[in-house]
Amino acid sequence: MRYLHAMVRVSDLDASLDFYVNKLGLQEMRRFDSEPGRFTLIYLAAPENPQAEIELTFNWDPEIYSGGRNFGHLAFAVDDIYALCQRLKDEGVTINRPPRDGRMAFVRSPDGISIELLQKGAALPPTEPWASMPNTGSW
Amino acid sequence: MRYLHAMVRVSDLDASLDFYVNKLGLQEMRRFDSEPGRFTLIYLAAPENPQAEIELTFNWDPEIYSGGRNFGHLAFAVDDIYALCQRLKDEGVTINRPPRDGRMAFVRSPDGISIELLQKGAALPPTEPWASMPNTGSW
Repeated sequence: MRYLHAMVRVSDLDASLDFYVNKLGLQEMRRFDSEPGRFTLIYLAAPENPQAEIELTFNWDPEIYSGGRNFGHLAFAVDDIYALCQRLKDEGVTINRPPRDGRMAFVRSPDGISIELLQKGAALPPTEPWASMPNTGSW
Repeated sequence: MRYLHAMVRVSDLDASLDFYVNKLGLQEMRRFDSEPGRFTLIYLAAPENPQAEIELTFNWDPEIYSGGRNFGHLAFAVDDIYALCQRLKDEGVTINRPPRDGRMAFVRSPDGISIELLQKGAALPPTEPWASMPNTGSW
């Protein structure tokens, strides 16, 4: 048995690719358009283990997606949590849970999917502006 | 950057382990109990790629978890989709989307997380009772 992917629905494909690929750093592996089904599937992956994918489902007929509590988040290990959070912040992403401890942060996708970022290896030394940054919203 | 896990909240730890481990076939990799936080984390994985985990979060204070539409499902490739669906069915799991095509099935976890099962390689020949089995509910 092999883990394949987590599927999330996205209401705006451009905004989602901008978030997951340009900002977060995932790579697009392949995509599939279904004219009769009126949907597009895009498979993304983190560079280090591309066999575990994130499947974005974009239904061409608009729908607003909200979240539930049974699903929690998707988690990624990152090389430098401060550098990534700075890049996300500079590009307009709210850092809901800043990496005050140099170890863990949470952000949300445009459709509200919670994303956990974890520093690889040992936590980084607490550093401003992160160390004193308060939480924003929930994650 | 490395994909780590998808976290799902579970309201009944025994029922969830029975579903994910005994019935579905995931393996428990490790667990962490937090007395002060009043929660238990259990990390599960499929045998073939255990670095992509499912994190079960069990909060000791009861809560009912419902789903949203932004999260879709978790997907696994399986060796024999008919054998697995038969085992799940025999053990009381509703096959929401039976593998009529010998290729794809959907079930749900006790907390309503949708699980996609995909036959590895080529689809199996259509076979009863699956070929004529109707859908049940949504997934």
